[in-house]
Amino acid sequence: MKQNILLFAFLLLATTSVAQPGGGRRWINTNSPEVHADQTVTFRYLAPNAKEVKLNAQFADGKPFTMTKDGDGVWSVTVGPIEPDMYPYEFQVDGIRVMDPSNPDCFPNENFKGSMVEIPGKEPYVYSIQDVPHGDVEYVMYDAPSIGATGRMVIYTPPGYDPQGDKKYPVFYCISGTTDTDEVYFKVGRINFIMDNLLAAGKAEPMIIVMPYGNPAAYFPPVPMPAPGSAPGAGMPQTDLFSTELMQDIIPFVDKNYRTLATREGRGIGGFSRGGGQALRNGLKHTDKFAWVCSYASGIGVEDLENNYKNLIEDPDKTNKEMKLIWTGVGNSDFLYKMATDFNAALTKHRINHIDFICSGGHTWMNAKLYLHETLPRLFQTANY
Amino acid sequence: MKQNILLFAFLLLATTSVAQPGGGRRWINTNSPEVHADQTVTFRYLAPNAKEVKLNAQFADGKPFTMTKDGDGVWSVTVGPIEPDMYPYEFQVDGIRVMDPSNPDCFPNENFKGSMVEIPGKEPYVYSIQDVPHGDVEYVMYDAPSIGATGRMVIYTPPGYDPQGDKKYPVFYCISGTTDTDEVYFKVGRINFIMDNLLAAGKAEPMIIVMPYGNPAAYFPPVPMPAPGSAPGAGMPQTDLFSTELMQDIIPFVDKNYRTLATREGRGIGGFSRGGGQALRNGLKHTDKFAWVCSYASGIGVEDLENNYKNLIEDPDKTNKEMKLIWTGVGNSDFLYKMATDFNAALTKHRINHIDFICSGGHTWMNAKLYLHETLPRLFQTANY
Repeated sequence: MKQNILLFAFLLLATTSVAQPGGGRRWINTNSPEVHADQTVTFRYLAPNAKEVKLNAQFADGKPFTMTKDGDGVWSVTVGPIEPDMYPYEFQVDGIRVMDPSNPDCFPNENFKGSMVEIPGKEPYVYSIQDVPHGDVEYVMYDAPSIGATGRMVIYTPPGYDPQGDKKYPVFYCISGTTDTDEVYFKVGRINFIMDNLLAAGKAEPMIIVMPYGNPAAYFPPVPMPAPGSAPGAGMPQTDLFSTELMQDIIPFVDKNYRTLATREGRGIGGFSRGGGQALRNGLKHTDKFAWVCSYASGIGVEDLENNYKNLIEDPDKTNKEMKLIWTGVGNSDFLYKMATDFNAALTKHRINHIDFICSGGHTWMNAKLYLHETLPRLFQTANY
Repeated sequence: MKQNILLFAFLLLATTSVAQPGGGRRWINTNSPEVHADQTVTFRYLAPNAKEVKLNAQFADGKPFTMTKDGDGVWSVTVGPIEPDMYPYEFQVDGIRVMDPSNPDCFPNENFKGSMVEIPGKEPYVYSIQDVPHGDVEYVMYDAPSIGATGRMVIYTPPGYDPQGDKKYPVFYCISGTTDTDEVYFKVGRINFIMDNLLAAGKAEPMIIVMPYGNPAAYFPPVPMPAPGSAPGAGMPQTDLFSTELMQDIIPFVDKNYRTLATREGRGIGGFSRGGGQALRNGLKHTDKFAWVCSYASGIGVEDLENNYKNLIEDPDKTNKEMKLIWTGVGNSDFLYKMATDFNAALTKHRINHIDFICSGGHTWMNAKLYLHETLPRLFQTANY
C-alpha cells in the first residue's frame, strides 16, 4: 500500500547507543519527532548535561513546552493532539535555540534554524504528497549581470511539461520573504505538491512557478556597520536590488529558457511577507509585465500607494480592465494585519477590484500554504471578479 | 565583473539590533562566517548568557577553538589562514552543538546539524561556481513500490541535455552515506559544479548523475527498540532495502524517464562511506547492470568478497574484460582506511584490475569532493587501464 508520506516525514534513526557502566553499549530511544496515530507527537533531545530543555513550536503560538529528562539523559515531551499541518519547531537548551538533530527536515533560513514536523490528517491535505503525477523541481543557476554574480532559484514545471514542445505555459513568480531563501516555497510551502494536487483535481491551470531569492544583497560582502543610532533598516539587505535583478535578469532568463507565455496575461507575481511587498511593488508598478498579483501577509503603505502608484489608481476602470487579479491574504493575528488590511482599504477606496482573504492565524507558513492554495487555482483563469 | 561565488557563500545579514540601556536600539555585528581576503575567517555567535562557546570545524581536525565574548554578548573567534575548500563547522554552546544561525548554508543530515563555510582560493577550484554552462539539478519524486512509498532523489542532467532529443547519456548512480541524505552530493559535494567545470574543460563525458537516498528505511515508522544487549546495528536502518529499491524502482524509473544508455557500459555506480559499500555490493554483484564502480572511503570485507562475490573473482580475465572501472579512494587518516585498503589488497591478490587512490585526510566531504573529481573524468571513457 502506498503511504502518503514524504521522505523524512517519519524518520527511522530512532536509537543512539550509549556506554553502560559495566561495559558494552546499550540502545536508547532518541527518535524525534515521533508522530503518533492520535496526532500527538513525542519530541526527544539527548542532552545529559543540560539543566533545562524546552520545546518551542508554532502549533502552540510560541508558548514553550517543558521537557523532562530520563535516566539516559534524553529530554522528552509528548504534546497534542495537534491539528494536522506542517509546523516549524526548535528546542531551547539552557536558553540556546537548536534544531532537532534527529530530524533532517529543516526550515531553510538566513538566520533561524528550525526543524519541521508534519502531522498528517485522516485524509490527505492539499499539500500532502499524493499518488498523482508530480511536476519537476529544479535548482537553476543563472547569470545575473545586474548583481554581478551567478544566481540560484528554484523552478517548478508541471507534469507533462515539454521543454521542446509547442505548448507554452504561464509563469508565476513567487518571491521569498525576509530571511527566507529560494528553497522556502519548496521545502516549507510544498508549493510543488499543492500544484500537483490541484492539477490532478483539474482545479488549476498548468503553470511554471519560479522561486527566486528575494535577497540578492546576500551575494555581496556585508555592508559597512550602520553608525550608532541609525534607524532600523540601515543594516538590512538592500531589497531594491531584487527588483532590478527580477526585471533585468530573472524574467529574461526564464522567458529564454522555458516555454513561457511571455505576455502580461501569462505572468503573475506573488510573495510572502517582504516577498509580498516585492510582489506588489513590482507587479503593480509594472502592469505591462504582470496581470496577476498576489500578496501573502504584506502590503504597500497607503501613502506609498497614493504617491507612487498613480499608474494604478488614477484610472480605476482602466486598471480593473487590465489587472486580472489583485489578491491579498492575511491572518487576523498576523503582525502585518494592519498594514495588509489598510492596503486593502486603500484599494477599496480607489475602487480597484481585488480580493481580500482574511483568515485566522499569524505570520506563519501554515497560513502561507493556505494563501497558495487559495490563489494558485485563480491564476491564469478567464476571470476572477 | 562576475564573482565566482555561490549564493550564500557570503552573507549580508551582518547585523542584529539590541536594546540600549537608555532606550532605543543599536546595531551589533553578528555576521558569520565572515571570510576575509587573507583566508582567515571570523565566526560569530550571539549568546549573552552562555558561559562558554567553542567552534568545531573540520579544517581543524575537530580541535575546538575557544571563542570570546564582547560586551554585546557576541562570541567570536578569527582563525586561519585556512586552506581553500568547503568545510563543515558548528558551535558548541555550553556543551550544546548548534548550527551557525547566521548561515543558511547547511549540511543536510539525518542527525548532525552542521553549517558550511567556503574559503575561496586565488583561482577557482574544480567545485567553484564558474562562468560555464550549468547543468540542471532536479529534485525528483518517484514511485517506489518496493518500499511502498513515494521516494525523492536528486538528478543532475548536463548542459544541453534534451529530454526529447536523440542523444542518449550514460548514468552515474551516486549513493549517500550513513546519515547523509539525497541532497548531500549537491549541497555539500557540489557534484553539479564539479561536473559543469569538467565538461567545460572537455575533461569528462556528459552524463546523468542520479543521487538516490541511501536509507529508504527512513520512509518507515521506527523499528521496535532493540532488546538490551543487542549488537550494534540492531537498531540501525535496514540498508539492504536500498538494493531492492535501486534495482526494482530507481533504475527502471531513470531508464524510463531519461534519455539513458540503458546498458551495463552506460551505467556506473559510486558512493561515499556506507554509500560506497552499497555501490560496491550492488555494482560488483550485478556486473550485468554496471561496468563502472567507484568506492569513496569504503570497502567490502575481504571474507565477504571471497564468499559472496565469486562471480567477480573466479575468473579474473573475464572480470577484467567486463569491468571498465573499479576505483577505490580513501584518506590515510580515514577511520575506514584499513577496510578500504584491505579490500584493495584483496582485489590485487585476485588479480582484479582496479585503481587505488590513497590521499591525505580523513572521512570528510573535502576528500569526497576530491574522489568525485578523480573519478568523474574516468567514467564512460574508452579505457582506464
